[in-house]
Amino acid sequence: MIEKVREKRPLIYHITNTVVTNFTANGLLAMGASPVMADAEEEAAEMAAAADALVLNIGTLHPSQVKAMFVAGRAANKKGIPIVLDPVGAGATSYRTETARQLLKELNISLLRGNVGEIKALIGSDGNIQGVDAIQTEVDEMEAVAKEAASLFSVPVVVSGAVDIVTDEKDLYRVANGDELLIRITGSGCLLSGVIASFLTVNDSRTEAAADALTYYGVAAEKAAMKGEQPGSFQVAFLDALYEVGKEEIQKMAKQEKMTLS
Amino acid sequence: MIEKVREKRPLIYHITNTVVTNFTANGLLAMGASPVMADAEEEAAEMAAAADALVLNIGTLHPSQVKAMFVAGRAANKKGIPIVLDPVGAGATSYRTETARQLLKELNISLLRGNVGEIKALIGSDGNIQGVDAIQTEVDEMEAVAKEAASLFSVPVVVSGAVDIVTDEKDLYRVANGDELLIRITGSGCLLSGVIASFLTVNDSRTEAAADALTYYGVAAEKAAMKGEQPGSFQVAFLDALYEVGKEEIQKMAKQEKMTLS
Amino acid sequence: MIEKVREKRPLIYHITNTVVTNFTANGLLAMGASPVMADAEEEAAEMAAAADALVLNIGTLHPSQVKAMFVAGRAANKKGIPIVLDPVGAGATSYRTETARQLLKELNISLLRGNVGEIKALIGSDGNIQGVDAIQTEVDEMEAVAKEAASLFSVPVVVSGAVDIVTDEKDLYRVANGDELLIRITGSGCLLSGVIASFLTVNDSRTEAAADALTYYGVAAEKAAMKGEQPGSFQVAFLDALYEVGKEEIQKMAKQEKMTLS
Repeated sequence: MIEKVREKRPLIYHITNTVVTNFTANGLLAMGASPVMADAEEEAAEMAAAADALVLNIGTLHPSQVKAMFVAGRAANKKGIPIVLDPVGAGATSYRTETARQLLKELNISLLRGNVGEIKALIGSDGNIQGVDAIQTEVDEMEAVAKEAASLFSVPVVVSGAVDIVTDEKDLYRVANGDELLIRITGSGCLLSGVIASFLTVNDSRTEAAADALTYYGVAAEKAAMKGEQPGSFQVAFLDALYEVGKEEIQKMAKQEKMTLS
Repeated sequence: MIEKVREKRPLIYHITNTVVTNFTANGLLAMGASPVMADAEEEAAEMAAAADALVLNIGTLHPSQVKAMFVAGRAANKKGIPIVLDPVGAGATSYRTETARQLLKELNISLLRGNVGEIKALIGSDGNIQGVDAIQTEVDEMEAVAKEAASLFSVPVVVSGAVDIVTDEKDLYRVANGDELLIRITGSGCLLSGVIASFLTVNDSRTEAAADALTYYGVAAEKAAMKGEQPGSFQVAFLDALYEVGKEEIQKMAKQEKMTLS
Repeated sequence: MIEKVREKRPLIYHITNTVVTNFTANGLLAMGASPVMADAEEEAAEMAAAADALVLNIGTLHPSQVKAMFVAGRAANKKGIPIVLDPVGAGATSYRTETARQLLKELNISLLRGNVGEIKALIGSDGNIQGVDAIQTEVDEMEAVAKEAASLFSVPVVVSGAVDIVTDEKDLYRVANGDELLIRITGSGCLLSGVIASFLTVNDSRTEAAADALTYYGVAAEKAAMKGEQPGSFQVAFLDALYEVGKEEIQKMAKQEKMTLS
């Protein structure tokens, strides 16, 4: 599917945090998408109307940015383009948790992506997860959290971790590609949300699009880790790999598993 | 002229977008200039009064930043230091287009730099370009747009593209240096505006200063592309090249052409 | 002491400038700390209450950020976690100088770090430094300024330069590690403040913690300069070195000198 993304060169509008703007833009350019960032309420509707997808990332929230998120989100919903919500730091402060919940409630979000702690914070139950007795491993917990969030918010959910989980209650994907150096560079999750948004623009199945985005991203990380074994050189090699990785490499290296939930 | 820039080490005050602050600062430091960024109305006048040039970049506008731009711009005009305007995304939203036009109207801008779409948006005529019948190539169009903008706003204009155009209605330069990987890294245009601003501080001929800045920048990109063939490694090599490239290399590799318009 | 930092993985909350957020976060992740950035008054108290240390950096101030700094600072003081103040650009504008002085006055700052010009601006005396007759070298001046600031503000002070000075009026350290390429990359001082904050979380002696942080940082820079001799490649190698440098290398390469003041 990476070929379709590169052919379409989708315009991905980000309202995101100030830590990752540069890396996100460079990652999307390297992949072959077209990123744009804008924070102001004054232009949020017009920008969303011109875009192919919208990413809302709450990593450095402030009130005027929240206003812009709602304006952009409503315009995106009106146009019918996908919205990815990245609830960075949900659970760390109530401002983040509440803002993320409000975005989920008032906008039609297409996909929610976070780590297990962030998604649990949005669910709001510290352990009151369905099937909790069956949870024996970290992956079990991630899957339970992903299913619970997908059900509660009626939205496909990606939970990122050593293995990435995608589910919409009907299907569940496990993607085992990636490298642990990803957690040593800032913004690797934020950029991933932009990559998923890009894949959503070329595939109507949101879970399949997300699983394919995760596989592409993880394969690029594995390729990068062969060249750069420390965070600085890994980051450079990762941008190179996002540019280079193609269909054949993905097919050869993919560790993607799909299950159908009853 | 790069030697003069490095000797002077000009202080370039940027009010710019949050995506490119880091890359712009690193690029100017690598070249040998001294960048400073500040957004607040509270300090814009003092900062401009201390600077050797001012760059206004509208890439992530918001109302308080626009106020700071006008305060800084007036102080820069009062002091007589050059102002470069980079109308990032003009045409994408009316907020950007209108803000850029207002800055052009109310401040004494020394040079306007953008891509052909941005400059066309500021002109406001979708094709009503003088000499439109003679436009057969992309470069023809860029030159027509640059001349039209230079005339309309009474300011030297740089239109960036595969070939860069500089004109002030009297002279026109074509600079063919550069590498297409520049469009795969974010902020390459924004940094270029800072480089041009630096060259303006050591040469009273604004078109010549801009043409020399473009040549230096393009030669550095060509040198970088020999070492880094993907976006991540290219960006690293480009910062290295901005630091290393000197007079001799520029003279040897320059593809600069000057024409005198009637 | 780097081992203790890596074991603790302290959460360092930054309210910092938009130029260096990405590099600071990447540097702290590479070292083994856990950075978080947040600007909004709405969440500053909660974030500070969750953190192990707070860094206040005035590099791109605006009024709402200043409010967040005071809220975060009071919460940090209440919790008893260290606060490092980095007065970027103090002296360049009165807004910066006054804000830094107010932070020093109204909060219980644990350590002040800046270059000699910034610290002099906070003292407010252009040369009225105690023992001024004895000042014959740049290092003499740095030491006099550091002592004066430590006395005036009753806080340990780090003055960064070719040699770094740490003093609290009782002890004085000189750290001669480092590389001049550090001044060719933006944010090297800002990241250093985050590194010092991290070391403060594992050592009750603030001057010793700062001296050890400076030594670790300088050794990493020296190691990086062997691999990357230009700013772009140096920055990559520096992040790698922050990740790799360990106790043995530090002990072998350290140029740290301690003196007891009367």
